[in-house]
Amino acid sequence: MSLEELAERIKSFEGVTRKKQIEDIVSIFEAVRPEYGDAIVDFGDDAAVIDIGGDDVILFAADGIWGRLLDASPWWAGYGAVVVNINDIAAMGGKPLAMVDIASANSPQACRELMEGLAEGVRKFGVPVVGGHVHPDTRYNSLSVAIIGIVKKDCVIRSDTAKPGDLVIAAYDMDGKIGPNSPYSWDTTSFKEPSVLRKNYLVTQEIAKKKLVSAGKDISNPGIIGTLGMLCETSRVGASVDLEKVPRPVDVDFEQWLKVHPGTGYVFTAGSKNAEECVDVFKKAGLTSAVIGIIEEGSKLDMYDKTGRVTVFDFSKDSITGIVSETGIVSE
Amino acid sequence: MSLEELAERIKSFEGVTRKKQIEDIVSIFEAVRPEYGDAIVDFGDDAAVIDIGGDDVILFAADGIWGRLLDASPWWAGYGAVVVNINDIAAMGGKPLAMVDIASANSPQACRELMEGLAEGVRKFGVPVVGGHVHPDTRYNSLSVAIIGIVKKDCVIRSDTAKPGDLVIAAYDMDGKIGPNSPYSWDTTSFKEPSVLRKNYLVTQEIAKKKLVSAGKDISNPGIIGTLGMLCETSRVGASVDLEKVPRPVDVDFEQWLKVHPGTGYVFTAGSKNAEECVDVFKKAGLTSAVIGIIEEGSKLDMYDKTGRVTVFDFSKDSITGIVSETGIVSE
Repeated sequence: MSLEELAERIKSFEGVTRKKQIEDIVSIFEAVRPEYGDAIVDFGDDAAVIDIGGDDVILFAADGIWGRLLDASPWWAGYGAVVVNINDIAAMGGKPLAMVDIASANSPQACRELMEGLAEGVRKFGVPVVGGHVHPDTRYNSLSVAIIGIVKKDCVIRSDTAKPGDLVIAAYDMDGKIGPNSPYSWDTTSFKEPSVLRKNYLVTQEIAKKKLVSAGKDISNPGIIGTLGMLCETSRVGASVDLEKVPRPVDVDFEQWLKVHPGTGYVFTAGSKNAEECVDVFKKAGLTSAVIGIIEEGSKLDMYDKTGRVTVFDFSKDSITGIVSETGIVSE
Repeated sequence: MSLEELAERIKSFEGVTRKKQIEDIVSIFEAVRPEYGDAIVDFGDDAAVIDIGGDDVILFAADGIWGRLLDASPWWAGYGAVVVNINDIAAMGGKPLAMVDIASANSPQACRELMEGLAEGVRKFGVPVVGGHVHPDTRYNSLSVAIIGIVKKDCVIRSDTAKPGDLVIAAYDMDGKIGPNSPYSWDTTSFKEPSVLRKNYLVTQEIAKKKLVSAGKDISNPGIIGTLGMLCETSRVGASVDLEKVPRPVDVDFEQWLKVHPGTGYVFTAGSKNAEECVDVFKKAGLTSAVIGIIEEGSKLDMYDKTGRVTVFDFSKDSITGIVSETGIVSE
């Protein structure tokens, strides 16, 4: 496959294109943004940042689970909902505090499996579900989970603060396997002990406290390049990625790897002075980490290898979420 | 209709019986309650109470909207989701800070109406939506909203702390109308100015600060008697209600009135010394309020009028949520 084909496949990947719908929500809520408000304005970030008046801020996020994943396996949907919510808080440098869930199920069995998947996530990550609703008699299955976390105000890792010249760091758990219900899910948690997982996700709290990074985001449905694209779009910067530096498992196709949603995975940016220490901290926590590129002036996210260089996104004409630093209040 | 018939109709009302499913969730999450945790244990309450280490605690709640209401009117579902979430925080004496939503819609029009209803709620109550997801291409409509609020730790109004001898106070906005999509919805907000509404819902923050009440809960789908029943069940007490003291509109059937879910409405309990002041504070905020009964030893919620006395719930054999103070961690 040529670089051009690879870029086109990433750009048209459903994990990327489904992010576009965020723009519509923003436009509606923008018009009614309250005249007062405790939200430290954050745009298209993993979690919203709520000022509560002291040194700490509250992080607040919500994630739903795609219907097809839920129908394929209610257990995995329940479990996965915990993982993605934990990641939303971890990506911002925060400590997860508690979750609430709203579930709908079309059978008692689906309902029980879904709840048991959620409960397994609670057991693994040690973050409680403290409330919620179940609608056990719907014609469909759906699951929404919201999470809160806490972090020092001056330590928050945002995704709209990357600066030209920053190095791009990828970090993820390579000890995983393609999940049972999607070729684009990379399960790194379900078969591991809680103590191992907590070390993995606590690492971002250490990075936040040490103020090693300028921006960051957890790798979600858009995959590594798509997630970096979202970070660039909201930060109003470009970037270039050296594909040969992207750590990859030997037994997964590279295009597929660039699209996976890992159980634990981040794209962070840092000044050149801190990038090495950041990579080291990730490695000590058991993740694979490497500098894979650099943030640049402009609006283009390029990737290159020895065969050439290609633009994946040009935010002067493309958009992933459509959210840039001045236009919205919606986290995703 | 005889008192016995009225009691049976309240007990078998869907708004009451649907609360039973909470018990199953609790039993699953109980088994995996983390060994550590920042949740101040709260049982079947309107919102969970999360300790963040200082004088303040974070309130955290979630509510879904019944499918049939959503299909009947996506706008009302979106708007109503804001109202019920605001009420969850208000009932605990808290200040609402922010909401997140997860919505699924089966058509672009349903999606837009739903979002516009949410946005109108934001405009009315001045609490921002700071994040969320939309799935615009599902086969069904669904909406989940989560909310956070803040309150001083020693001012939280819980629902599991009513004591025998406390008086039962009802407070609600009588300036309303039966909602367009359900005979059991009492709309008191959609046609009023934001300034009026904010006065209505800020009143519970004043009552919390003055520590006037021993327990409280917002009146939701189970109606006035059913909501008091949930408060009695989780507080492990009984109560008796003098039906002739229950304020009612002249133009709504009394059985229907006892089942309505008001836009703004609370059942609070207070020692006899404070009950009068509490009623006065509610009245000054524009709500109708009255002492309607008393909390008693035992497990029976009775109601009476001049024709006799009848037991609606006997928690030694009945249950609404099945949650009592020692058995769960799930708010509802």
